[in-house]
Amino acid sequence: MHFTSEQRFDDGVLERSFTLGEIPGILWTPPSATASASAPLILLGHPPLGLEKMYPRLVARARQAAADGFAAATIELPGSGDRPRWRALDQARADLRQAMRAGEPVGEEIVDRLVLPLVERAVPEWRAALDALLSLPDIGGPVGYSGGVISIGIRLAGVEPRIAAAVLFAGSLVPRAMFDEARQVTIPLHVLLQWDDEGNDRQAALDLFDAFGSKEKTLHANLGGHSGVPQFAGDAAAQFLVRHLK
Amino acid sequence: MHFTSEQRFDDGVLERSFTLGEIPGILWTPPSATASASAPLILLGHPPLGLEKMYPRLVARARQAAADGFAAATIELPGSGDRPRWRALDQARADLRQAMRAGEPVGEEIVDRLVLPLVERAVPEWRAALDALLSLPDIGGPVGYSGGVISIGIRLAGVEPRIAAAVLFAGSLVPRAMFDEARQVTIPLHVLLQWDDEGNDRQAALDLFDAFGSKEKTLHANLGGHSGVPQFAGDAAAQFLVRHLK
Repeated sequence: MHFTSEQRFDDGVLERSFTLGEIPGILWTPPSATASASAPLILLGHPPLGLEKMYPRLVARARQAAADGFAAATIELPGSGDRPRWRALDQARADLRQAMRAGEPVGEEIVDRLVLPLVERAVPEWRAALDALLSLPDIGGPVGYSGGVISIGIRLAGVEPRIAAAVLFAGSLVPRAMFDEARQVTIPLHVLLQWDDEGNDRQAALDLFDAFGSKEKTLHANLGGHSGVPQFAGDAAAQFLVRHLK
Repeated sequence: MHFTSEQRFDDGVLERSFTLGEIPGILWTPPSATASASAPLILLGHPPLGLEKMYPRLVARARQAAADGFAAATIELPGSGDRPRWRALDQARADLRQAMRAGEPVGEEIVDRLVLPLVERAVPEWRAALDALLSLPDIGGPVGYSGGVISIGIRLAGVEPRIAAAVLFAGSLVPRAMFDEARQVTIPLHVLLQWDDEGNDRQAALDLFDAFGSKEKTLHANLGGHSGVPQFAGDAAAQFLVRHLK
């Protein structure tokens, strides 16, 4: 892990860009984080639109997390941003858009092609990032995951024992195979659903919530579209992470 | 409204029992409530099991509300507790229990007989209680409703303009006719659903949430049965009321 640049905000939060092999990422640490008082870490999930495009929302979430005493980090997804194009993923995305424009139901085959390879490649990268991040003196456990792509969150929550709790954003199509993985998830979950999310399947999101094996799971559904998560819902998700990680 | 007894708790909360005509009720006021600084009011809804049986849970909710600076009040439902028996309601309840014991689907006809007359009689009583409560010097607006019977909450939220926000507990069967009333509700809503509530119809609760006409509505679904609402879900509902009533 190599730090490539850093800046400090007015509120004392330190933002450091890094690379991990070919993967760019960003780490935010609160002013309270030191070698003798390391901060718990939240991995910030995001859709595959590129870190640069997602930056304004990510930095807002990171500074909210820092206000609660958390470090936060994210990495670029494979095929996104400045990383090499991924033709198969681009094709699946084009096929999805075409089906939606045509008003056709989105077939399972497209969802599988769009999501499963991304999960397969991204999850080991998140775990490698976790190794690197937790080796820093000012970052400690426990670790939470927060955001989408929800299928990445499901896989991570199931296979990565260092993740103690997760906020999952039910805002993307979920392959059938992920429902079986959801049943294996046992950590506390806080699931966010936007009730009128145009590109999402509401019933599938409810079925997925039902499938999770966790003893503590909460669904927060709010009126509005994909990007309209209300401030109070973000606050409630933050409180969930404070309750489980501090 | 006649006060019949009072006691003050360690935390300074004043509990006063009252009667309003033949209807018994309880009012709790925080120590901060005075004639010059009146407290906003939360009406505490509850199932028709009698105030005496519900008292432990009601007083806990009232003291939580008082800690947030709210007064809280509740009244006995018609046919419950020490009020005159209501044969038709008892019969509907017996029919419901028999259907559930027999593992039969609960017919709409039973639900209508069980809930609609209760709504018809209870809602004017709650409104009369509201008149009396708001005439007290230490009680002011705005007013919230919190709890079940959800159909009573729906009707109150639709017809009573003094109610500014409501926490509705989706834990009882809802007559079809109430879905039309739900579409007319426009105040901010916070709906609680216990995901594994044995006597409740989960899909109907989700449909009802969908039907509400409010621009701000939030569903909090938590794992567990009817009476297993987690503490953190109660806290979140309290925060909703603070956000809208203070």
